[in-house]
Amino acid sequence: MRVLLPAGTTETALIDGISAAGAAPELMEHTPSADVEILAYGEPVAAPVTPVSPNGCPTPAAVTRAVQEVVGFDLAAIDAGLARSTAAPTVDLGVEPGNDIREDAAVPDANAVFDRAYDYGTSLPDDELLIGETVPGGTTTALGVLTALGEPTGVSSSLPENPIERKRRVVDEGLAASGLEPGDCEGAPLEAVEAVGDPVQPTVAGIAAGALAAETDVTLAGGTQMVAVAALLRHADVDAGLSIATTSFVADERGDDLAAACERFNCELTVTDPGFDERDHVAMARYRAGEAKEGVAMGGALSLVPDADGRMREVRDRLEAVCARLGIESEGDGRNDEQVDDGTATEDTRGS
Amino acid sequence: MRVLLPAGTTETALIDGISAAGAAPELMEHTPSADVEILAYGEPVAAPVTPVSPNGCPTPAAVTRAVQEVVGFDLAAIDAGLARSTAAPTVDLGVEPGNDIREDAAVPDANAVFDRAYDYGTSLPDDELLIGETVPGGTTTALGVLTALGEPTGVSSSLPENPIERKRRVVDEGLAASGLEPGDCEGAPLEAVEAVGDPVQPTVAGIAAGALAAETDVTLAGGTQMVAVAALLRHADVDAGLSIATTSFVADERGDDLAAACERFNCELTVTDPGFDERDHVAMARYRAGEAKEGVAMGGALSLVPDADGRMREVRDRLEAVCARLGIESEGDGRNDEQVDDGTATEDTRGS
Repeated sequence: MRVLLPAGTTETALIDGISAAGAAPELMEHTPSADVEILAYGEPVAAPVTPVSPNGCPTPAAVTRAVQEVVGFDLAAIDAGLARSTAAPTVDLGVEPGNDIREDAAVPDANAVFDRAYDYGTSLPDDELLIGETVPGGTTTALGVLTALGEPTGVSSSLPENPIERKRRVVDEGLAASGLEPGDCEGAPLEAVEAVGDPVQPTVAGIAAGALAAETDVTLAGGTQMVAVAALLRHADVDAGLSIATTSFVADERGDDLAAACERFNCELTVTDPGFDERDHVAMARYRAGEAKEGVAMGGALSLVPDADGRMREVRDRLEAVCARLGIESEGDGRNDEQVDDGTATEDTRGS
Repeated sequence: MRVLLPAGTTETALIDGISAAGAAPELMEHTPSADVEILAYGEPVAAPVTPVSPNGCPTPAAVTRAVQEVVGFDLAAIDAGLARSTAAPTVDLGVEPGNDIREDAAVPDANAVFDRAYDYGTSLPDDELLIGETVPGGTTTALGVLTALGEPTGVSSSLPENPIERKRRVVDEGLAASGLEPGDCEGAPLEAVEAVGDPVQPTVAGIAAGALAAETDVTLAGGTQMVAVAALLRHADVDAGLSIATTSFVADERGDDLAAACERFNCELTVTDPGFDERDHVAMARYRAGEAKEGVAMGGALSLVPDADGRMREVRDRLEAVCARLGIESEGDGRNDEQVDDGTATEDTRGS
């Protein structure tokens, strides 16, 4: 089992009100660089920002790191279009940052990126891969490619109040700028990415397609964005088995819509609840309130935590330690779950 | 504890008869790229070569990987001048491949590389770092900087018969090309690197100096090349405590010379014997015969294996498995050490 973390950027994230991944737009393009540093070293190292919302909600990288510290897993971060340098080790697949989807081409070299990612995916010796992502603005580009493919589905948000109408307007503008109508890219997934996607999408899809061709098990770790990747793969006629693992926070927001999307794209769905309602720590309270929800392979990482032996409690303990390193001091009432039930659950639902 | 692995190249390695790191000169510049893939994935992934000598002696990366699989450690590979792409995750410090030391400048930007590496070393949150290297031709560039610094010491070799006279001639030519006499760079370590070094040296030295300034414990994992780095650090007036951890193969070849060098540069020396004489496997037989000896943090990694509980035996078991993945099939007589003493020893010697 190896966790892969393609990390990239799209200028789409800079559109006002699109993303919560970074406190200020001008700092947002550092977020994925900081995320991979948090995974590699436990805290940002060279990145000049710590991705924590004004309310004290840490990047999902904090949760993924906490899981890594508890259960251990091999990790490789992949530069899937980072705009800012990072001190974390990354695999270089020659991927450039993405353009605003309202420009002519959002990912001009989508085909070449997919091909290089495919080769990488084929070459890996692992039996099982879990592929996440970190790309601010990624739910908007997910909506973009789903719309271009003609796949009717909603998208999630890193903000408690999902600015879905704003995202739809941006996507409509993006399609128009590429001379496309919704559904015009049916069966042509890389055209969809080129027009209104982001560079992380062909990286994840390429690695997944290559790995599946090499008979490696693939789990897409994420919510809305991974539904979009699954759609890309199905439109590319990749019909191998595929899983999606996400958090209860995404599942709770999306309701039956998420399960329906997984069924539509023939993906097994795993939803994991990290039991954050057991603690009063500000970070967990913010997730409960609907901030962040998912990202940086959080849901997939959580699915690796065994149910038994209070390991999820250990993850929550470790998350508090990671938060302390990120400068998040909780002003909670000290409630913790030492004496209560573990309160976690992983739910498996097989699509169609 | 984190193991850092700066990996780079110097055209010095292409000089006939200098290095055993790669079966043919034209393939040698792939060796460090393959080494970091072996550490990351357990086998080469994108690199078109598997660094195994014609005799069946695997790169020391195989041993370091075997240790990692047994005891586990955090790892970050650093691009310290790779000439060929790698599918392994690497930290990008903007380091270029090195020139042949017989050219005007071997490492034109040695100062800038040191500074960037220093910043990286300062920023790491780890309490303890173990820094290795992989750079074909590295013992010749080690001899180069030691000579330029006026430090009389021998160097080891990845070949059973050390071509030391050839190395000395190359170094003499390199110094002459830079208008230098032996000892001219005393107190000016980065001038020595610029003239007759390789890009891995200022990367290792910079990270070590930065980490030591941040009060992180630093162990240099290697033999001859790490003695040269220690010399660079001492000539840069870095006087913090420093350790060198190497293999018994280097120590056996160098005799008292190695301990004397460590004493001269005030380094604690740890020598670890992996007990390869317990097995008839061709890989271990080649190391016993004096091939490879050290590199890719091998000696440092071995020093992390606890003496007790037969853990070194586990490393040998794992090494056989790694060798099988690398296509090395032993034709040994099946001798193994299941029933015998562990046969390993780690020896600590404090210099001056």
